[in-house]
Amino acid sequence: MSKLLIVGTVAFDAIETPFGKTDKILGGAGTYIGLSASQFNVDSAVVSVVGDDFPQKYLDLLIKNNINIEGIEIVEGGKTFFWSGRYHNDLNTRDTLDTQLNVLADFNPVVPSTYKDADIVMLGNLHPLVQLSVLEQVENPKLVVLDTMNFWMDNTWNDLLKVIKKVDVITINDEEARQLSGEHSLVKAARKINALGPDYVVIKKGEHGALLFHEEEIFFAPALPLEEVFDPTGAGDTFAGGFVGYLAKTEDISFENMKNAIIYGSNLASFCVEKFGTERMQELSAANVQERLEEFKKLTQFEIEIT
Amino acid sequence: MSKLLIVGTVAFDAIETPFGKTDKILGGAGTYIGLSASQFNVDSAVVSVVGDDFPQKYLDLLIKNNINIEGIEIVEGGKTFFWSGRYHNDLNTRDTLDTQLNVLADFNPVVPSTYKDADIVMLGNLHPLVQLSVLEQVENPKLVVLDTMNFWMDNTWNDLLKVIKKVDVITINDEEARQLSGEHSLVKAARKINALGPDYVVIKKGEHGALLFHEEEIFFAPALPLEEVFDPTGAGDTFAGGFVGYLAKTEDISFENMKNAIIYGSNLASFCVEKFGTERMQELSAANVQERLEEFKKLTQFEIEIT
Repeated sequence: MSKLLIVGTVAFDAIETPFGKTDKILGGAGTYIGLSASQFNVDSAVVSVVGDDFPQKYLDLLIKNNINIEGIEIVEGGKTFFWSGRYHNDLNTRDTLDTQLNVLADFNPVVPSTYKDADIVMLGNLHPLVQLSVLEQVENPKLVVLDTMNFWMDNTWNDLLKVIKKVDVITINDEEARQLSGEHSLVKAARKINALGPDYVVIKKGEHGALLFHEEEIFFAPALPLEEVFDPTGAGDTFAGGFVGYLAKTEDISFENMKNAIIYGSNLASFCVEKFGTERMQELSAANVQERLEEFKKLTQFEIEIT
Repeated sequence: MSKLLIVGTVAFDAIETPFGKTDKILGGAGTYIGLSASQFNVDSAVVSVVGDDFPQKYLDLLIKNNINIEGIEIVEGGKTFFWSGRYHNDLNTRDTLDTQLNVLADFNPVVPSTYKDADIVMLGNLHPLVQLSVLEQVENPKLVVLDTMNFWMDNTWNDLLKVIKKVDVITINDEEARQLSGEHSLVKAARKINALGPDYVVIKKGEHGALLFHEEEIFFAPALPLEEVFDPTGAGDTFAGGFVGYLAKTEDISFENMKNAIIYGSNLASFCVEKFGTERMQELSAANVQERLEEFKKLTQFEIEIT
């Protein structure tokens, strides 16, 4: 089995949706990616930083899910990163109500010595220089996957291009792909992003699924149509976690296997949105995931003979 | 082979997109549905009305494509229905610049005697009472498919419900499904629309593909990611034409076969948008369609064993 290294926030979120409202709960890209990848029982570690206000039970939860937390620095007297947001009625858009960087402001990531030989590196959404620093500490990864967002395009463009140049796969949403490439057509956008570095471009379209681009090939994973989306927080990170987790488990980073990996990403993300925060991911069983895989097959597979 | 009866406008369109602008060209739902279904060499007829300003060459084009036009009334001294619209830069939205009903205002559809025994009836987007009148003239159809739009929901709600009650399949877009059902979730919307009559609900999401709902089952056909959409006019009608054309050719109206039919609908619609108006559909070969079917397979088919 491949070794998976994840960098990303481990944080507090406070979320409001049309269905309800939470106090500070467990959140952060690193958390969602880790929990999602842990569905594949891979050997994974999360690199992150928290304050000493961060409850031990949350760290225990990660450990229980077989996630190595040696790389999660606990800053004495520091406060954990906090994000608060309110979703609009359609759940497709949200307002950020509060962002407190706290210990994240001076985050200096340290990769545990036992994970410097990681096979797969997942650079969760963070400052591109933090992502770059993690990448420089890993000796010879087979696959590097980058997630980022429009905030870094607006504020750290040159640093972002530096890290993009060094990765194999980038995952971004449709609007971010358009911003990064200056192209409206996602086919053209993916081609321009290929030219920036990544051989594989994954464009996430939320409820409209995700596209995987590689050379002249395109693969599409739909989102599962759900009766109700309860809380979209972490869906993109859960998608990424499923993607790298499946690749790590199968030790196969071919395009053909990446198709399966984005189906699993979409599969896991469809659970994430069913409850607040990480709640659904915490109680998720392998049987649940296999059952839903059957639904994905029914949703997409057809039999037509080419004449 | 099943007999296919289509009712829909045969009309003039004038279109503006970011790529250019046309004078009055051939348009209308009946035209697009007929041309699309003709790819399957089915026995089809279009019921419609035009003025004596309508060029014989357009009628000849339909005849050349094996479409029976006995049911297209030519009103002496009348003018053909005319629609003009301008698409916005993203091509997802448009403004109607002009609508001249002309001969359509008094359209009294007459089904040719040789098509009263049609197996499949496609009720293209028109006043629901016109759709109802056509349906009443057909003796014992095996499958009735209805296309409609928000305009009829706003203006002829009760008449629309009457025709919806009598059909097997309804095709509408996502916003229309929400309006018709009062539900934001498309899964819930489809269930409510089922309760209004149709056993099958097809929700068209444009560039985001189409969903087919039947009882507890859902199937999804993506739209093919294109480098450039040139003109979206007629894409929804072309989709519907591909759907009914394939069902008529295969004489199989099972849910399993409807999956194939919406893949073909999406396939044909992907050609329609490549040029202005019906231009691309006029030159389309069976080989083009089969080649693109291969692309749809590559786009959606995956191999994961359920464990």
